[in-house]
Amino acid sequence: MIIVLKPHTPEENIKRVENLIIKKGLEAHIVRGQEMTIIGCIGDTTAIDPKLFEVDEWVDKVMHVQEPYKLANRAFHPEDSIIDVSGVKVGGDNLALIAGPCSVESLNQVMKIAKAAKTSGANLLRGGAFKPRTSPYSFQGLGLDGLDILYEAKQETGLPIVSELMSTEYLDVFNEKVDLIQIGARNMQNFDLLRQLGQIDRPILLKRGLNATYEEWIMSAEYILSSGNKNVILCERGIRTFETYTRNTLDLQSIPVLKKKTHLPVIVDPSHAGGKWWLVDPMAKAAIAAGADGLMIEVHNDPENALCDGVQSLKPGKYNELLQQIKQIAAVVGKTV
Amino acid sequence: MIIVLKPHTPEENIKRVENLIIKKGLEAHIVRGQEMTIIGCIGDTTAIDPKLFEVDEWVDKVMHVQEPYKLANRAFHPEDSIIDVSGVKVGGDNLALIAGPCSVESLNQVMKIAKAAKTSGANLLRGGAFKPRTSPYSFQGLGLDGLDILYEAKQETGLPIVSELMSTEYLDVFNEKVDLIQIGARNMQNFDLLRQLGQIDRPILLKRGLNATYEEWIMSAEYILSSGNKNVILCERGIRTFETYTRNTLDLQSIPVLKKKTHLPVIVDPSHAGGKWWLVDPMAKAAIAAGADGLMIEVHNDPENALCDGVQSLKPGKYNELLQQIKQIAAVVGKTV
Amino acid sequence: MIIVLKPHTPEENIKRVENLIIKKGLEAHIVRGQEMTIIGCIGDTTAIDPKLFEVDEWVDKVMHVQEPYKLANRAFHPEDSIIDVSGVKVGGDNLALIAGPCSVESLNQVMKIAKAAKTSGANLLRGGAFKPRTSPYSFQGLGLDGLDILYEAKQETGLPIVSELMSTEYLDVFNEKVDLIQIGARNMQNFDLLRQLGQIDRPILLKRGLNATYEEWIMSAEYILSSGNKNVILCERGIRTFETYTRNTLDLQSIPVLKKKTHLPVIVDPSHAGGKWWLVDPMAKAAIAAGADGLMIEVHNDPENALCDGVQSLKPGKYNELLQQIKQIAAVVGKTV
Amino acid sequence: MIIVLKPHTPEENIKRVENLIIKKGLEAHIVRGQEMTIIGCIGDTTAIDPKLFEVDEWVDKVMHVQEPYKLANRAFHPEDSIIDVSGVKVGGDNLALIAGPCSVESLNQVMKIAKAAKTSGANLLRGGAFKPRTSPYSFQGLGLDGLDILYEAKQETGLPIVSELMSTEYLDVFNEKVDLIQIGARNMQNFDLLRQLGQIDRPILLKRGLNATYEEWIMSAEYILSSGNKNVILCERGIRTFETYTRNTLDLQSIPVLKKKTHLPVIVDPSHAGGKWWLVDPMAKAAIAAGADGLMIEVHNDPENALCDGVQSLKPGKYNELLQQIKQIAAVVGKTV
Repeated sequence: MIIVLKPHTPEENIKRVENLIIKKGLEAHIVRGQEMTIIGCIGDTTAIDPKLFEVDEWVDKVMHVQEPYKLANRAFHPEDSIIDVSGVKVGGDNLALIAGPCSVESLNQVMKIAKAAKTSGANLLRGGAFKPRTSPYSFQGLGLDGLDILYEAKQETGLPIVSELMSTEYLDVFNEKVDLIQIGARNMQNFDLLRQLGQIDRPILLKRGLNATYEEWIMSAEYILSSGNKNVILCERGIRTFETYTRNTLDLQSIPVLKKKTHLPVIVDPSHAGGKWWLVDPMAKAAIAAGADGLMIEVHNDPENALCDGVQSLKPGKYNELLQQIKQIAAVVGKTV
Repeated sequence: MIIVLKPHTPEENIKRVENLIIKKGLEAHIVRGQEMTIIGCIGDTTAIDPKLFEVDEWVDKVMHVQEPYKLANRAFHPEDSIIDVSGVKVGGDNLALIAGPCSVESLNQVMKIAKAAKTSGANLLRGGAFKPRTSPYSFQGLGLDGLDILYEAKQETGLPIVSELMSTEYLDVFNEKVDLIQIGARNMQNFDLLRQLGQIDRPILLKRGLNATYEEWIMSAEYILSSGNKNVILCERGIRTFETYTRNTLDLQSIPVLKKKTHLPVIVDPSHAGGKWWLVDPMAKAAIAAGADGLMIEVHNDPENALCDGVQSLKPGKYNELLQQIKQIAAVVGKTV
Repeated sequence: MIIVLKPHTPEENIKRVENLIIKKGLEAHIVRGQEMTIIGCIGDTTAIDPKLFEVDEWVDKVMHVQEPYKLANRAFHPEDSIIDVSGVKVGGDNLALIAGPCSVESLNQVMKIAKAAKTSGANLLRGGAFKPRTSPYSFQGLGLDGLDILYEAKQETGLPIVSELMSTEYLDVFNEKVDLIQIGARNMQNFDLLRQLGQIDRPILLKRGLNATYEEWIMSAEYILSSGNKNVILCERGIRTFETYTRNTLDLQSIPVLKKKTHLPVIVDPSHAGGKWWLVDPMAKAAIAAGADGLMIEVHNDPENALCDGVQSLKPGKYNELLQQIKQIAAVVGKTV
Repeated sequence: MIIVLKPHTPEENIKRVENLIIKKGLEAHIVRGQEMTIIGCIGDTTAIDPKLFEVDEWVDKVMHVQEPYKLANRAFHPEDSIIDVSGVKVGGDNLALIAGPCSVESLNQVMKIAKAAKTSGANLLRGGAFKPRTSPYSFQGLGLDGLDILYEAKQETGLPIVSELMSTEYLDVFNEKVDLIQIGARNMQNFDLLRQLGQIDRPILLKRGLNATYEEWIMSAEYILSSGNKNVILCERGIRTFETYTRNTLDLQSIPVLKKKTHLPVIVDPSHAGGKWWLVDPMAKAAIAAGADGLMIEVHNDPENALCDGVQSLKPGKYNELLQQIKQIAAVVGKTV
């Protein structure tokens, strides 16, 4: 941490800040320039709020130097984490290819999609049972019945399942039945939920919040990791910007950045980011070319009658074509399917 | 709802969309132009997802015309809602003047601040017992002990209390002890929590999410209203933009917009928006001049030693000066203190 | 400037960076911690690009400490600049009350509006002769004829005039006829134009770019100041955010921030920010309450037939009512009209 | 264009709006619902400002349906435009591979980089002679001397050159010497400059503004096209968002969107978007996988001593490695190098 004092700070005020630094268990190194004085603080600053120092009237600014996360930090864990999702490896050279409908509608629907997706090369099955909806009047998902349908599809196809958990109320049943528990963008900073996810062992798929910085996103992973669950996969799904033609702006720079800063796998959801089915194909390819560890794609056999988000779903035939090209691009960048 | 078809849509495809509209219980009015065909859909579209229609390959775009909220809508409830917070009226001509520390630290601290704030004219006491923090390593608040301290301060000063609820786990105790339950920006779309807040009668202070549009914010209020609790107060606290010198960008246009669209009171939190104590005074005045129904301001007797957010807190003396000017501006715009 | 080196940077690489710092004419103060090494650079860093140092593979980050502007900096010019616009003082306790139509349409139109605005208390007359339009097919303004109309209105009413210059081509004629030359948001970083504005003496009204940070905005003023023209007034007109119900988000925090960082007057344009006439009244009041040095408001006698932006214009009667309340609020915050 | 009237608009007011529509040369189709009345306007609305109608007190909103651009619109020009840059084809299956230093520093520097880049497969040479800089105190480029150096490098290597024009003052010399005239992000809405670019025949590389929507960007191209120059190439270079770890957020969704909406080639500049050299490789690959028509990449033989932006430049060796993988990915998505 670096503290910059205002020009002409009186000596006694420099001393005062220095004492506060020492009181917090840090070493203070004072650099006196003609126009300003800078204090370098050496020690573990992870748990220290820089704003504590900003309150002092002679402090101009406080800059964090050390990253505020430890367990997620690649600096302390240089190798890629490889997460085992009920036998499917995610991270390293292994691609997670997650496919399935936005909402679970019926066993018949899920089975049709799951079989087609598996044939194309998907290795994980997604489906929404509990749906976070902006409007209280919209379809909210089949709930526990939806979870049972997914579970049955898993028994039949062998594909481990991915589904979104919205509240601690259903944590136990998700822990029992769901192989990869998805936390949606709107819950990325539901800290109470994150802490409870740290109490279980199930892999967690942590989506980026619509306005989350890279650091905030990593800190949310740190909540889970520091509560005891080491199995976290990050999922880029677009951020909110001024551009409204697309639902959100897919930020593929997040892939190399997150992989540099952390050791956790990073996958991409191109369906929710753009909100249009014809954006899925180019963005899925781009994600893999940029080094993503997987893709989560909405596939629907009958998007025109889907109960939710049909407009961003691929039909199984299109998904199959896409995966064939994905495999070729993956080979160029050193990933295997 | 208006559906715009692509140029040269074949007649049978127009018919197909028309049938889908009728199936959804709406009337379809077709306007045929040379270059495009437009279908006006008449009826209650609140529960209809416009994306259902966008899936059709001949549909160019679907535009919602009707507002998707009913209970919060001023069109159906033209008078200002006035919310009674344990005797303090909020809305109409009445200003809510909420003051107190960011975090509850001790009974002594809270009492000192509460007494000073009350003398200056504050009519509600705030204090954080449970703190949402980006880092799992930061101070998380005193929890239930903090709530007890607030409750004791309320008994002594007579000021009703405002505190943030982060999880359904503590809903009962908040319902019992807290006069105005605050929902923070990061939980604005924690739909499960919102629905449960609808089951109680306590007034709710719903902060705007960092990236929430006006409509999304109102829809979150609609979740609470439609679950049965009519006592919702909205709180603008800044949005996230590209500008990083200030913590967030305070959007005061939200006051006239929200008051035009809804009948709910709208208050402003200038402390969290700017993140700097010297921005509180001008922004508080601006909020009242723009028609806000109240202010939530962090006041701390010893900001340099505050456990949280001291840098954005006013000392009691400054708060007192501010309130005297606030009263004068309030008088110009027709509010009483 | 502060340079943070990566953990375990070899001694020779620290030396290498130190030498580069010295070569640039700065002093280097090295702070060695266990985990990282920090180098404080003392001296004038205004003209040094911090990225020069970031290229080094052992440099983790470079942080600017000194503000990169000098002439606009309040630190070196503590008193408010008061700009004289052909006899009307702007800054200090003096409010600039600029009113007029978005576009100049005819002498009759401008005269009607100018007279009404003057009666209400306006002291400067605005009107667009050259209009920056997103579409090449939209009305682009009357051009030089528009300027002549404004000039004639000035002779009759005595109100100095404000009009937007879009290109260096017309700099001479603006310098001759226009009392306050407006530079629009889209040209805020047209550096060539800024430099040429520094060659004249006319006061410049520099609008904030839609995505300009405070620092970038001040740096654009610095271009004009450093080229020789000391008469710069800043104008907040809203920034682009994710919220699309309003045209832009008016950032009133910019007023106290800019007035703290610089000595230049800061005025506000509430008409363009919101894009809706009913937002002008509350936002104008809020701007004055927050300490703005003036307002630029679109006033039109017949907004329903205006050639441009009628929807955000006030009718003279509404403008008159607003100014009466503005005067009362101005008195509370120590400004005179 | 669709006009939505407020609930219970009186018949005479509906008539009034209808008359205004007819006066503007459009047909009005009225759809009367129980709660609202919608008017579909049929005809050429390109030159009509929808705000004209919003002024009416009974108009709730006005929605543009037709795209406001014609010459850039793929609907009226279905085949890809292929732009000939002094013999190098851009668009269709042809990739533009533009490489070179951020700033021209010396003939020796430019020649070294140009030869290496050409060997790797680059087909166009970039170099900045005039540099847009936020600070008036930063290096502003070598100016006309820089242009001469580039021109000489072109004679020797045969690579056509790309350089940024910042002002109409140098239009003639750029038209004479530069093969592809770049317009930077900050000038994307310098409408006067755009119009003058329409008077020449040289291909124009139009970068996206930092806060430009897709539509605004296309409208800026339309300015050039409608002024007579059909040779426009679009360049995505990142937009400004809340994320500050990267310089800007690269929006690769823009590639499929722009290629769907327009017939113009779309290339990507990954160097400026991220502002870090290690982001260039993954983002360049991603751009090609997403269907980009080319890449503009900063290459520098000695980035540690570059006068500008060394931190985002690739060394020739890294550039060479990247191009080999780019060729493989290009083959997968049907492009040839």
